[in-house]
Amino acid sequence: MGNKSDVEIARETDMLPIEEVGKKIGIKRHALELYGDYKAKVDINKMENVAGKKDGKLILVSAITPTPAGEGKTTTVAGLGDALQKIGKNTAIALREPSLGPVFGMKGGAAGGGYAQVVPMEDINLHFTGDFHAISAANNLLAAMVDNHIHHGNELSIDPRKIAWKRAVDMNDRQLRSIVNGLNGKTNGVPREDGFHITVASEIMAIFCLSNDIDELKEKLKNIIIGYTYDDHPVTAGELRAQGAMATLLKDAIKPNLVQTLEHTPAFVHGGPFANIAHGCNSVAATKLALKSADYVVTEAGFGADLGAEKFMDIKARYADIKPSASVVVATVRALKMHGGVSKNELAEENLNALEKGLPNLLKHLENIQTVFGLPAVVAINKLPTDTNAELQLIEDKCKELGVNVVLSDVWAHGGAGGEAFAKEVVQLTEQKSQPAYAYDLNDPITLKIEKLVQKVYGGNGISLTASVEKEIARLESLGFGDFPVCMAKTQYSFSDDKTKTGRPTDFDLTIRGVSISAGAGFIVVLTGSIMTMPGLPKQPAAEKIDINEEGNIVGLS
Amino acid sequence: MGNKSDVEIARETDMLPIEEVGKKIGIKRHALELYGDYKAKVDINKMENVAGKKDGKLILVSAITPTPAGEGKTTTVAGLGDALQKIGKNTAIALREPSLGPVFGMKGGAAGGGYAQVVPMEDINLHFTGDFHAISAANNLLAAMVDNHIHHGNELSIDPRKIAWKRAVDMNDRQLRSIVNGLNGKTNGVPREDGFHITVASEIMAIFCLSNDIDELKEKLKNIIIGYTYDDHPVTAGELRAQGAMATLLKDAIKPNLVQTLEHTPAFVHGGPFANIAHGCNSVAATKLALKSADYVVTEAGFGADLGAEKFMDIKARYADIKPSASVVVATVRALKMHGGVSKNELAEENLNALEKGLPNLLKHLENIQTVFGLPAVVAINKLPTDTNAELQLIEDKCKELGVNVVLSDVWAHGGAGGEAFAKEVVQLTEQKSQPAYAYDLNDPITLKIEKLVQKVYGGNGISLTASVEKEIARLESLGFGDFPVCMAKTQYSFSDDKTKTGRPTDFDLTIRGVSISAGAGFIVVLTGSIMTMPGLPKQPAAEKIDINEEGNIVGLS
Repeated sequence: MGNKSDVEIARETDMLPIEEVGKKIGIKRHALELYGDYKAKVDINKMENVAGKKDGKLILVSAITPTPAGEGKTTTVAGLGDALQKIGKNTAIALREPSLGPVFGMKGGAAGGGYAQVVPMEDINLHFTGDFHAISAANNLLAAMVDNHIHHGNELSIDPRKIAWKRAVDMNDRQLRSIVNGLNGKTNGVPREDGFHITVASEIMAIFCLSNDIDELKEKLKNIIIGYTYDDHPVTAGELRAQGAMATLLKDAIKPNLVQTLEHTPAFVHGGPFANIAHGCNSVAATKLALKSADYVVTEAGFGADLGAEKFMDIKARYADIKPSASVVVATVRALKMHGGVSKNELAEENLNALEKGLPNLLKHLENIQTVFGLPAVVAINKLPTDTNAELQLIEDKCKELGVNVVLSDVWAHGGAGGEAFAKEVVQLTEQKSQPAYAYDLNDPITLKIEKLVQKVYGGNGISLTASVEKEIARLESLGFGDFPVCMAKTQYSFSDDKTKTGRPTDFDLTIRGVSISAGAGFIVVLTGSIMTMPGLPKQPAAEKIDINEEGNIVGLS
Repeated sequence: MGNKSDVEIARETDMLPIEEVGKKIGIKRHALELYGDYKAKVDINKMENVAGKKDGKLILVSAITPTPAGEGKTTTVAGLGDALQKIGKNTAIALREPSLGPVFGMKGGAAGGGYAQVVPMEDINLHFTGDFHAISAANNLLAAMVDNHIHHGNELSIDPRKIAWKRAVDMNDRQLRSIVNGLNGKTNGVPREDGFHITVASEIMAIFCLSNDIDELKEKLKNIIIGYTYDDHPVTAGELRAQGAMATLLKDAIKPNLVQTLEHTPAFVHGGPFANIAHGCNSVAATKLALKSADYVVTEAGFGADLGAEKFMDIKARYADIKPSASVVVATVRALKMHGGVSKNELAEENLNALEKGLPNLLKHLENIQTVFGLPAVVAINKLPTDTNAELQLIEDKCKELGVNVVLSDVWAHGGAGGEAFAKEVVQLTEQKSQPAYAYDLNDPITLKIEKLVQKVYGGNGISLTASVEKEIARLESLGFGDFPVCMAKTQYSFSDDKTKTGRPTDFDLTIRGVSISAGAGFIVVLTGSIMTMPGLPKQPAAEKIDINEEGNIVGLS
């Protein structure tokens, strides 16, 4: 494939008009709202015969514990979708939308890579159809209404020291993490400590992803707890009468976006909350629409399977009654070598020993998918140019020894053609009996839910709680939130809460540092360690290299 | 017309598909990028024969000094466009985009009213095609890059106390006017005083409106002064290498938006900077595209003619070499009565005395348009239901007495049919000789430019400057900005700098409190009094009443 960049490969591809893409899976022109020629929103209310239609089969793509080497989950989803299409299956994929912030920081684009991408990648990586901007606006309208309420007399007795609702901006901007606002005299608000999240970390993003329609959206928005009164009663967005205007701002955003892969497989790219303080999957609306439209739907969950796939099952699938038929755990030789102790700048060299040492990480994730969540699963090795034959052979041999299903995915270099064997294996998996299950019951006490996750999914011993956390858990239970699922905010770099413990750590406790309630989204966030909800830019931000010429061609977008 | 709200009238209208609207003025389907069925961006690079085409005639709609009674400038532009179309002229209108902030504050929508509106009004008043979000993102990327540069060692020696670049959000949020950010230790930025503008007040909005293409946009973005070094040298966005990424964020935004009026007249709605700290007109790109497409183009300028029309001529038209053929000064009976001393809650009663007392405000604006700016002009009385026949007759009589051209515009109640006489008068005006002129020369010294505006346009005596302002003006001249036009930041409620002086004040000096440089946009902002660049919400924000139902119908949007 030479040395072409992702954006060059993407630009060389002729896209199909989006009407043609929709037609492939039975979505007619009048159900599309076009955004240019290659992007559209789909209005499910304008689709015929949807209610009576049988759902397609859902394939959940997850991964090993992430490393700086990268795993290529999005690449795998795009490539598997193309491969399924190539072997004659009616297919769609369902992905998360990239966040604008990281595009200008380190990451560059986030729409797959090589010959397995979703396009138009520049648009998807920039404003796309404006969903994240709508979420920022709804988030910041609520924030303005909170402070405005206090400014104009504070009838609800909101304690300015206990406001839980932050403002949001879709930008990596560390300068906004901790601020004092409302300064400069009594016409300019009420001075208080405050801060900004990046938009993907807003509770509205999570609500947006878990709502099936406008009414459900409004109900969840209404339930958001924006803070507490001086005598510690929760105050909701509903008490500020904010939910109608917020839902109005989100009216177009909640319609799923349709684009395509490089090989014209329909791709729903919609929603994308943080995978630690939220569930990290694309929207329920998009997943369901994809299942109503195509026979095979490939989707992804953020970070490693301990976080993403767990939340996909315990939060998203449980709420939305979605049942995956099979699962894929993605790994790369490079990432497994990192789990075996190799540093990032030595990854190009063959290292069979380290590779073997890294394998237990993969095996634990696979075991979780199969035994905890009851899904037939296959390991997909996402092949990269630096992999040696001996390395690939070793993985295959070791997996076969242990009875583990493994396939090689060569979609990065060859698109769908590089994933045919992979696709056939996945189709076969979906014919097997799938018995989706959850890691805990909703009526388990909150601490038991967390303990079950630690023991069953993370492979640790148990949890340790401070007295203040115990008190806060008791308070949430007394407020009626005891039967909410838990959403673990844990480092993505380890099964444990210590990011230096790569591979498969054992014999550890998880320290719970706090809990907080997302009453609108409907889960309890369990904090282990400090979770950053506003990234910063690196010393040389990617933004410095991004440019556009007079013809509108962009350079520097990875 | 009964008691229908604007949104009800708008919803009852069947819109034409936007391709049909484009076709009316020779814009073919392949030059349109659709945003749904009724909105599109126009790519001028995909239009044929544009370079060789003769420009249409431009009609500039301005108004008397604004009052809380409202004048209906946008209504007049939409209605005049429909009336011109009705009498058989090939017509387009060119308007500003509404800001999201005020929609949730007091104002409600801003897309005209009654039977003279642009549609789809809900979309235009909400996110529209995302232009303002793109401007916010470009603004905030630059801000993040400034603070990131300081955080990572501050190679350029930027003085954190002298940063001139604020962050922006498209929301009325007084709590963000004055903040301290970068708090909470050395990993979280550098503590400093800061604040937010509303997006329309961003210099990027002004740059966006004055740029013809991507290259010009990048050049202007590069020239933005973000602050000063410890030894007082200006630091530009170019030195931070920010202009490429900022222009990339704006690549779609700079394409003019096409929508339609209730009677399907093509409407370019694009750009909308503050009319005090910026020029307050729609984009040069949209105005020029409209002139290339239609034989008659009606456009508007913000606030009264002393601010909007003056800046239209002295900044926008001069930079872009645009020559209006005629001008309309809009007034209402209610507003003239307020200029004559009537309070807002007594406006429903007939008051001939007050009306006559208010007329000199109108006459001074008309005189400016004709004698200072050299444009043939007509006064349009925007008829409202509370006007009495005696009041309308009085205006007509007084104007005729003074030889002033006046027409009645009944477009609010009757659309284009209510403006036929008005349209015929305007067509006749455009046949007259127009000799567009400016109020000052670019090579006049800065203080002389200001003096000329005060004496010629405002009708005052002169200006008073403090020593520090004089020093700052000398500094701007030494930095090479002496030949920039000046952009007056003055209260819109009076010809003077005292908003209580309504009507036509005389014998006053204008006090200059400061000057600042918009080196990217290319003008010097002259501050008189305190100009608020971040509005607040009222005690009962409009947001509380805005709602959406399951069918997607919005209520409460004016």
